[in-house]
Amino acid sequence: MLKLNETHDPGLRSWVTSANDGVNDFPIQNLPFAVFRPEGSVEFRGGVAIGDQIVDLLVLSKSDVLPAQLRPTLVAAAKPELNDFMAMGPSAWSSLRFALSRALRQGSELEAKLRPCLVDQANVEYKLPCRIGDFTDFYTSVHHATAVGSLFRPDNPLLPNYKWVPIGYHGRASSIAVSGQEFPRPLGQLKGPDDETPSLAPSKRLDYELEMGIFIGSGNELGSSIAMDEAESHVFGMCLLNDWSARDIQAWEYQPLGPFLAKSFASTISPWIVTLEALAPYRRAFSRPAGDPQPLPYLSTEQNKNAGAMDIKLEVLLQTKNMQAKAEAPVSLSRSNFSESYWTVAQMVAHHSVNGCNLQPGDLLGTGTQSGPSHEESGSMLELSRGGKQPVQLPNGETRTFLEDGDTIILRGYCDGPGLIRLGFGEVTGTILPAQLNC
Amino acid sequence: MLKLNETHDPGLRSWVTSANDGVNDFPIQNLPFAVFRPEGSVEFRGGVAIGDQIVDLLVLSKSDVLPAQLRPTLVAAAKPELNDFMAMGPSAWSSLRFALSRALRQGSELEAKLRPCLVDQANVEYKLPCRIGDFTDFYTSVHHATAVGSLFRPDNPLLPNYKWVPIGYHGRASSIAVSGQEFPRPLGQLKGPDDETPSLAPSKRLDYELEMGIFIGSGNELGSSIAMDEAESHVFGMCLLNDWSARDIQAWEYQPLGPFLAKSFASTISPWIVTLEALAPYRRAFSRPAGDPQPLPYLSTEQNKNAGAMDIKLEVLLQTKNMQAKAEAPVSLSRSNFSESYWTVAQMVAHHSVNGCNLQPGDLLGTGTQSGPSHEESGSMLELSRGGKQPVQLPNGETRTFLEDGDTIILRGYCDGPGLIRLGFGEVTGTILPAQLNC
Repeated sequence: MLKLNETHDPGLRSWVTSANDGVNDFPIQNLPFAVFRPEGSVEFRGGVAIGDQIVDLLVLSKSDVLPAQLRPTLVAAAKPELNDFMAMGPSAWSSLRFALSRALRQGSELEAKLRPCLVDQANVEYKLPCRIGDFTDFYTSVHHATAVGSLFRPDNPLLPNYKWVPIGYHGRASSIAVSGQEFPRPLGQLKGPDDETPSLAPSKRLDYELEMGIFIGSGNELGSSIAMDEAESHVFGMCLLNDWSARDIQAWEYQPLGPFLAKSFASTISPWIVTLEALAPYRRAFSRPAGDPQPLPYLSTEQNKNAGAMDIKLEVLLQTKNMQAKAEAPVSLSRSNFSESYWTVAQMVAHHSVNGCNLQPGDLLGTGTQSGPSHEESGSMLELSRGGKQPVQLPNGETRTFLEDGDTIILRGYCDGPGLIRLGFGEVTGTILPAQLNC
Repeated sequence: MLKLNETHDPGLRSWVTSANDGVNDFPIQNLPFAVFRPEGSVEFRGGVAIGDQIVDLLVLSKSDVLPAQLRPTLVAAAKPELNDFMAMGPSAWSSLRFALSRALRQGSELEAKLRPCLVDQANVEYKLPCRIGDFTDFYTSVHHATAVGSLFRPDNPLLPNYKWVPIGYHGRASSIAVSGQEFPRPLGQLKGPDDETPSLAPSKRLDYELEMGIFIGSGNELGSSIAMDEAESHVFGMCLLNDWSARDIQAWEYQPLGPFLAKSFASTISPWIVTLEALAPYRRAFSRPAGDPQPLPYLSTEQNKNAGAMDIKLEVLLQTKNMQAKAEAPVSLSRSNFSESYWTVAQMVAHHSVNGCNLQPGDLLGTGTQSGPSHEESGSMLELSRGGKQPVQLPNGETRTFLEDGDTIILRGYCDGPGLIRLGFGEVTGTILPAQLNC
C-alpha cells in the first residue's frame, strides 16, 4: 500500500475544477468512497468524491464509460453497502481508482460521457458506508492514555502493559451513525465521590473523542491470523471518528470489564473513506522514544519502522448553541496529528487477529483518542479541562468543562506536506440534544 | 411473557411420539427455534424442534397446513436468518407457537398434512440462528464475580459497583459459531509473574464459561430506552453459550479497558432458541440477600420481584481426547442454576438501553458465567481448579487445571419441577484444536 503510482502525481488536475483549488478536501489524488443518495432519490449507492462533486457509481455502472473488465468491481462499489467491494481486496480497489483517476483528469476523452454521472455534494444525503459487523476501539495515543490514566489512577497513570500490548476493546456497532448524528444526552448510573449510593441521571461529564476509524477490507478466517507484512492489504481505508464518551458513567461502571454504557449511546463517523492507497505519500518513519521497549516480533517489520506512521493533521471544533443562533463560525478546541500514535494501523490489525479472531469486510477499528504530547493537543474535553477542573475559555465568552446541550462537535483531518497535494477527510459533525427524561 | 396458556398444559402430548418420553429436551410444551438444513440441501431455513424431529418451516410455509393469516409470520420464521421473525414481536411469535402446538398435538386433524414437513434431527446441519449484530456479555453471577475477583484482586474481590450496576461489556460478534465449533488454541501475549517481558505463545490457561445467551427480539430506536415493564417483550428467547476464555491473555491485557483477545477467538452457542414464552412455567421469585441494596428504580418492578428469576438447571461436561478414543462418555464437571443470577433478564435489557443504546433484533446478550454459591457449582475451570492451583481429578485418572488440546466441552440446560414438564435447551459442544504456530 506504500507504492506510489501515477494516481499520486501532485501535478494531476481534474476537469472538475473545484478539485483543483488547493483547499478542497477532494483533489483528484484523493478519490475517497462514500454511500449516498441524491436528493429525491430513494436508493442509496456508492460514490467517489471529486472536488465539490460525487461520481455516482450506480449511474456509472450502468454506462460504458469505464472498461468492461471493471464491471464487477464497479457493480460492487455501487451498492448501498460497500462490504462486497471492500472484500475484493487491494487490486480491485486500485484498479477502480486508477480508471477514475484517468477519466477525471484534465484532457480526458471521457469527460463528456462521465459528466452526467456527477452529483453535487450539496444535494445528497449520506449514510454509513457499509454494514459494520464489529467495532473495536484501540487506545493508541500514549499521551491520551497517560493524561486520562493520571485522572483515573493518579498513582499509576500508564499501566505496565501499555508499551507491549496495543490495548483495545470491543465497542458497540449498532449506535454508530454517519456525520450529522444528533442524540440525547445519555442517562446512566452516576456516583460522585461524596454520594453514598449511585443514582440514575443524565451524564454531567459528556465528552467527545478525536479518533480515526480504520475500515477492514478483505477479512481472515476464524482461527487464522494476519501477519504484519500482510496487514495493510486488509485495510480498505480510513475516516474520522468521534467516539462520544460519558466520563461519569464510565468512572462508575468500568471496573473490571471496561467501558460499556459510557460509550454505546452514540459514535459518529465521517461519510468519506480515504483509501490507504491515497494516503501513501503521507507515510512517515515510525519510531519509539529512547528507552521504550521494541514491539514483539509479531508486531514488527522493517516496513513498519520505515513508513508505519501517517502524517494526518487532526482538528476539533466546537459550535455552541449560542454560536449557532448568532451564525458564528465554530471555534477550534485543539489540533493533533495521527503520526503521534504509539501503535500503527498494521500493528492494530496484526494484534487483533493474532489470537485467530476473524476480521470481516466492513469492520471498523477506532484508533482511540489522538492526543499529542502537549496539553493544547488534547483530543478530549476531559484532558483539555484537566478532568473538569479547569474550564476552557471560548472566544465568545462562554466556557466549557464538558459538553452542553446544543453543542455541535466537528472533527476535521487532512494531509499535506512539501511538494505534496493537500488531501482531506471532509468532516464529521454531531450534536447533543437534551436528555430524554421519560424513564 | 409470564401468562400461561394452553400451550403450557403439562398434559399435552404430541403425535410425534419421541416428544412424549419425559427425557427428550423438546416436548410439545417447548417448541424452540433454530436454523438448519437437511442433509443434501443447500438452503438453510428456520425450524421448530419436536421430539427427535424438526418441523421444516420452509416446507410448511409453502403448504396450506396452517391458517392463511399466519403466512407472513411463517415466511419470516422460515428464512435462513431469523432476524425478521424476531423483529415481529411477541404476538407473532406466540401465534405461530399456538398454531404449531395445536397441529402437533395427539389427535390433531393436521397430522397427515404436517407429517411431510418433518425432518429427522439426526440428518441436519445447524448454523447460527440469526445475524448477530452486537454481542454483549454480562457478569450476573455474584458467585463467579467474587470467586474470579479473589483470584485477580485478592484484597478486593467484589468491586463496589457490583451490587448496583449490571456489569457488562461489548463482546466480539464475528467469532460466535454454533455448536460443534472447533478452533485452535489462541496465541497471545503472556507474561507470568516472574517474566521480565511478555512473549507471544499459545494460551496455557484456556477455559470455558458456562453461560446462557439471550436473543433480542424487537429492538428500540437509538436515543430511546426500554423500561423494565416492557423489557421481556423485547426478548425472543434463550440458548446455551460457552464463552471460551484465555485467562493468561486476559490477565495481561485487560487493564484498563476490559477483556479483548482473551475472548474474541471463539464463542459457541446451542442451535436451539427456547422462547421466553416456553419458559413461563419455570419462573421464580427473585430476591437479594438480606443487607444487599435494592436495585435502583429503573431496574425494579413488582413483576421482577415476583417472577424475575428462572429455574434453569445447567451442567458442564468434559470429554477428553482419551475418552473420545476409548468411546467413553463425557464426565460432568459441575452443575449450577440460572436462578442464582444476581441480575434478571429484564434488568439486563433495561440497563443496556437506559443510555439510549439501540438493541436490534438478533442481538445476543450473554449472562456471564453462571456459578452457584458452592465451589462444586463453579461455571469455569478457573474457579474449579482455584486459579490453576488445584487440579480437577477426572474419573479416568486424568487431571485438568485448564483445558488441553482435543478436549470437548459440552453445556446442557433444562427446566423441570413438581407438576411441570421437563423441557431442555439441547446442548452446545466445542472442541479445542492445537495452536497454529505459523506466525
